[in-house]
Amino acid sequence: MTKIMAVNAGSSSLKFQLLNMPNEQVLSKGIIERIGMMDAKLSIQFSLDIEPVDQDRLKDGSLTTTKNGEQKFEQTLLIKDQHAAIELMLDKLTALGIIREVNEISGVGHRVVAGGEWFNHSVIITEDVLEKIDRLAAYAPLHNPANAMGIRAFHHLLPDALSVAVFDTSFHQTMPEKNFLYSLPYEFYTRYGARRYGAHGTSHRYVTERAAEKLGIPLEKFNAISCHLGAGASITAIKNGQSYDTSMGFTPLAGLTMATRAGDVDPSLLYYIQKHENLTNDEMLHLLNSKSGMLGISTLSSDMRDLEDVQTTNPHAKLALDIFYDRVIRYVGQYFATLGRVDAIIFTAGIGENDPVTRAKVLEAMSYAGVHLDPEANNVRGKERIITASNSTVTGLLIPTNEELMIARDVFSLENH
Amino acid sequence: MTKIMAVNAGSSSLKFQLLNMPNEQVLSKGIIERIGMMDAKLSIQFSLDIEPVDQDRLKDGSLTTTKNGEQKFEQTLLIKDQHAAIELMLDKLTALGIIREVNEISGVGHRVVAGGEWFNHSVIITEDVLEKIDRLAAYAPLHNPANAMGIRAFHHLLPDALSVAVFDTSFHQTMPEKNFLYSLPYEFYTRYGARRYGAHGTSHRYVTERAAEKLGIPLEKFNAISCHLGAGASITAIKNGQSYDTSMGFTPLAGLTMATRAGDVDPSLLYYIQKHENLTNDEMLHLLNSKSGMLGISTLSSDMRDLEDVQTTNPHAKLALDIFYDRVIRYVGQYFATLGRVDAIIFTAGIGENDPVTRAKVLEAMSYAGVHLDPEANNVRGKERIITASNSTVTGLLIPTNEELMIARDVFSLENH
Repeated sequence: MTKIMAVNAGSSSLKFQLLNMPNEQVLSKGIIERIGMMDAKLSIQFSLDIEPVDQDRLKDGSLTTTKNGEQKFEQTLLIKDQHAAIELMLDKLTALGIIREVNEISGVGHRVVAGGEWFNHSVIITEDVLEKIDRLAAYAPLHNPANAMGIRAFHHLLPDALSVAVFDTSFHQTMPEKNFLYSLPYEFYTRYGARRYGAHGTSHRYVTERAAEKLGIPLEKFNAISCHLGAGASITAIKNGQSYDTSMGFTPLAGLTMATRAGDVDPSLLYYIQKHENLTNDEMLHLLNSKSGMLGISTLSSDMRDLEDVQTTNPHAKLALDIFYDRVIRYVGQYFATLGRVDAIIFTAGIGENDPVTRAKVLEAMSYAGVHLDPEANNVRGKERIITASNSTVTGLLIPTNEELMIARDVFSLENH
Repeated sequence: MTKIMAVNAGSSSLKFQLLNMPNEQVLSKGIIERIGMMDAKLSIQFSLDIEPVDQDRLKDGSLTTTKNGEQKFEQTLLIKDQHAAIELMLDKLTALGIIREVNEISGVGHRVVAGGEWFNHSVIITEDVLEKIDRLAAYAPLHNPANAMGIRAFHHLLPDALSVAVFDTSFHQTMPEKNFLYSLPYEFYTRYGARRYGAHGTSHRYVTERAAEKLGIPLEKFNAISCHLGAGASITAIKNGQSYDTSMGFTPLAGLTMATRAGDVDPSLLYYIQKHENLTNDEMLHLLNSKSGMLGISTLSSDMRDLEDVQTTNPHAKLALDIFYDRVIRYVGQYFATLGRVDAIIFTAGIGENDPVTRAKVLEAMSYAGVHLDPEANNVRGKERIITASNSTVTGLLIPTNEELMIARDVFSLENH
């Protein structure tokens, strides 16, 4: 048995999960938020069975029992950077008795947003890999530098652990050229890598494998439409178990209407708005990423639950929801047409797992293709379940995603290769 | 019987058709190209039955018989502007004996590209209408000013003819807000009219009415997907005989891969390319409109026939074709999903009427929805015909478009209102 940590390092936050492998038991999960601020916060959840071993090192934090029957350690303090955040987290993991010593962690898997065309699977991080991750920051300026910083800090603090990069894009590297290419001058592809890369690959890969297994269909024959619907949302067409097309594009801005992201827009309109609002390109990108989507339409909230609460009285909230449902239906419809044969439509992530209305709208829209919702089965949140009737030509499924498990599996597999 | 002229005035060309109404007989059609140049060219086609009446006024041109058994008058000369072009054309129409005098033309219908939200049907052009057409140039900077110039020249030359504007966008004004709105801050819609307007409305309207009539389905119950596929290409979802959604957006740049237009692109990628190529917004728009699409991908030609000729030996040509087919299939697939029930898939315009391969690819992709191509029936160019088998759940049709007839009908209807 070996302990593996799955890490998602952002610019001001760091999420982690510690798993026992290969039995896939989650030992602890946690998050450090507001890194760089006076009131940064560390939060670590773990089992009731574990007895904290060093009260002195825990005295500035609080230990409580959560509703779902776990212990939670929390501490608010100044954390100056990612390195300090990770050092603090590792110190508390030992003080809490979750691990005896940090060297027990045999491998660390890092989520990396952009892998470009260089990485079509997870890899052990060498100097060369790290340099490539740095260079790929051009494609994910907010994410890759933070990912790389997290990798470097872990290298320093856990020099003996195997360090693995798990890319959001690598699952989509199987897309054929006709699907990943934009209709722009071809030279931009060769010169700048101007193409569709997609995102959420680890999630799409996890739910695809899980759904094929659950339905007893060999992965290499499995066709599906995987709907990862959260604050960021993407839909992937799965052909023979591989990504065949996906709604996110060169960056995670494209595709569906999201919480605050615009998705697809007529390019002419962007320049028209930019001219009239007198915005720079960077300001325009900020607007498209952070002020658009359901927030922009509703002028109220980026959170679907807020919109659902007021939709009967607020037409803007209803409009934002209708547009969200509609854009999901469009992508499912178009992937149905490009795939031709579909075994399953899979829903995952925040909205996909917890919003029966979205799932119902999508599956009902596909009734012309023989899809039949089971409304009772669909009345569920966050549980793996088949949600279509037995006479449905295509099986609808809710599969809670688990990117951390996928990361841990990739690390374990590379450790034992 | 009354003579009506349908006019499509561009910045350097002017196309016209003269029809007898209401019997819809085409008396003559023609084009003036390279307006403003030393070698501008006027070309007028008309029936063999007509005897030219004034040889003296025709002596600088040539009169030939065309392959399809008509007469053609052609003349190359300096034409300094649209006004001169129209004056010349009217003079030749009388000299050729197609009309006895210009006052026989009782009405002129002008194609106008952008009608915004102001015009949801064709209208008699008043000073107020003309001023609105001028203001709408913001949405169609290359087209509306030329359209307005054509209108003014005809007002001057045929002051007694009824002048009618037929907008490319008005058919799409029935789209619901959830379909025409982008996922941008709502204020841009109220402030700038930032929304989807679509185009090719006159063509989509014509083929929709014609298909419903041919299939004996009341228009108000007719659901269809209308594919106008030419150098410019758009697909419209028709619900209950009305436009419910369309692939072109704020401008005719969006949607499908076209001859030289990019269609949908991740906004982030545009700014990325712009930055690295050091292009202004206007240069970027030029690139997206004129150097992209099938021309950009193939690096060879914007004409599908050229690409088809070399596709077995030139992988870029094949890729451009594959992407074109694919993007059409995607829109048909997504409109199938948003409509739920579809009576017909209609193909029209240059590619839609003359390329059996595109039609076959699209209809075969929809076989999961019960669409069955009739390959023999599909082996046809430019003729109105049903191209699916009798057991197909959805009828595929080729309907040659006729925007000029639609314009003449609108003028005639307003003349008799």
